[in-house]
Amino acid sequence: MKTMNEYIETVNKKLDEYMEINYPEDIFKAMRYTVMLPGKRLRPVMCMESCRIFGGSISDAIPTACAIEMLHSQTLIHDDLPCMDNDDFRRGQPTNHKVFGEANAVLAGDALLSFAPQIIFKHSSSLGAEKILKVLNEYFQAAGAYGVIAGQVVDIESEKGNVQGDKAKTLEYIHIHKTADLFNLALRSGAIIAGASENQLVMISDFGRKLGFAFQIADDILDETSTFEEMGKTLGKDKAAGKLTYTSLYGLEKAKQDLNDLIDDCLELLKQNNLKSEIFEQILNKIRKAG
Amino acid sequence: MKTMNEYIETVNKKLDEYMEINYPEDIFKAMRYTVMLPGKRLRPVMCMESCRIFGGSISDAIPTACAIEMLHSQTLIHDDLPCMDNDDFRRGQPTNHKVFGEANAVLAGDALLSFAPQIIFKHSSSLGAEKILKVLNEYFQAAGAYGVIAGQVVDIESEKGNVQGDKAKTLEYIHIHKTADLFNLALRSGAIIAGASENQLVMISDFGRKLGFAFQIADDILDETSTFEEMGKTLGKDKAAGKLTYTSLYGLEKAKQDLNDLIDDCLELLKQNNLKSEIFEQILNKIRKAG
Repeated sequence: MKTMNEYIETVNKKLDEYMEINYPEDIFKAMRYTVMLPGKRLRPVMCMESCRIFGGSISDAIPTACAIEMLHSQTLIHDDLPCMDNDDFRRGQPTNHKVFGEANAVLAGDALLSFAPQIIFKHSSSLGAEKILKVLNEYFQAAGAYGVIAGQVVDIESEKGNVQGDKAKTLEYIHIHKTADLFNLALRSGAIIAGASENQLVMISDFGRKLGFAFQIADDILDETSTFEEMGKTLGKDKAAGKLTYTSLYGLEKAKQDLNDLIDDCLELLKQNNLKSEIFEQILNKIRKAG
Repeated sequence: MKTMNEYIETVNKKLDEYMEINYPEDIFKAMRYTVMLPGKRLRPVMCMESCRIFGGSISDAIPTACAIEMLHSQTLIHDDLPCMDNDDFRRGQPTNHKVFGEANAVLAGDALLSFAPQIIFKHSSSLGAEKILKVLNEYFQAAGAYGVIAGQVVDIESEKGNVQGDKAKTLEYIHIHKTADLFNLALRSGAIIAGASENQLVMISDFGRKLGFAFQIADDILDETSTFEEMGKTLGKDKAAGKLTYTSLYGLEKAKQDLNDLIDDCLELLKQNNLKSEIFEQILNKIRKAG
């Protein structure tokens, strides 16, 4: 068993190794820049911990855990572009295109989308071809048009007021795909590496969906109530833009209540399935506090 | 054995099937738009023909052939973006961002990068996990920072005048990565699917590098000597921008001579290795004529 800090150190050390600068330096520097920004490493930690609670060896999950952080970085680089959310700061630092220019930021994101699964391929041979393919398929599904990109597209459309129908359903769709899909990639691939059963995969996906939804509600709450110094990115933009958020739709009080309920559900799921995890409890309580 | 037209029909039919419109429609429409623009389908044809000449079944190579066309489309979508080459036309039609907006064009390209390998994964199960993984690794290598993206980055840097050292070597680097890497992905993965030996892979890579280089020289010649109507894209931009091209570096005459020599080398390689392919001969002669 590892502590949160030990997990984060493991991830940072491996990412530093994987993200070495090769030729052409411009592209590797741009890729490395966003991946190595200090972050909570939530997704890789979740991947390794999921592997552990289902009886796998943490070290088997490290390449996949790091690849998921690279994929997450890719989404940040492209989401921050001027033609998307046009953000200047991320994790307290200038965004990728601010440092490397737009062309290199687009290409660095593109490169990470192939670099990440290649890391899984290159460094997980001990898992065997069948298991690697299963993990890669989870990666393609979460990274693509059925995953995070679906969430981002509907988010953009909803900002333009182009989404018809039920606002609550649209928001749930955005949250599930923009956030829960990467959480579930982390949790499910960790479980697959550990050799979890189909039932266990269903359970951990349910957990991941609820956790992702809670995380996004907490993020919406923080966007309204926090400061740049606390968050390292420009805040209050959502509200100013009249964007569809959980707090704008339901108000701050109900948002906090729903967040609490989702966290309780997650803790209950772990308990029901006899899965003991201090790490997941820490993550859940941190998200609860944020709200 | 199939004729060129039969190959192209096979690819178009399968692409039409793979690129069905799902929710969110915006993203699938944008992905489909560029993939389905009428094209020569050179890369998928090369993939299937490579599989055939090494004794494989053409049908086994179809999903991979189509995935490579999707990857090629991805590079076109992102290369045409305003922050890159800023092109308004491609294959005679408005470029992706002109039709769907910049944000969707970025996301459509991103989505294709995961959609394409997922097509290989989903529709090639008869190949077995080991072979699928080998093909996927070729895909990641060609799509990423060691492949087409390396070529595009150095191309952008050279346009800015930021590349030091030997101009001829820089140009060769750009051509090999921007063009030959995808040709080699097509040829090598076709050969891998057929179960080609390591020696055969070395030979077909040599062939692909020469073919790719010849193709790019022909493209540089056409950029100077052709018209929009013939090519379906804006021409003469390279010369106007003072860009490093084969013709600007060596002049039109030497460019034509070198193109001829490379085509002869390719034909010779096929002959030496007892590989009979009317399709490759047609492709080679067509490239030779373009120059």
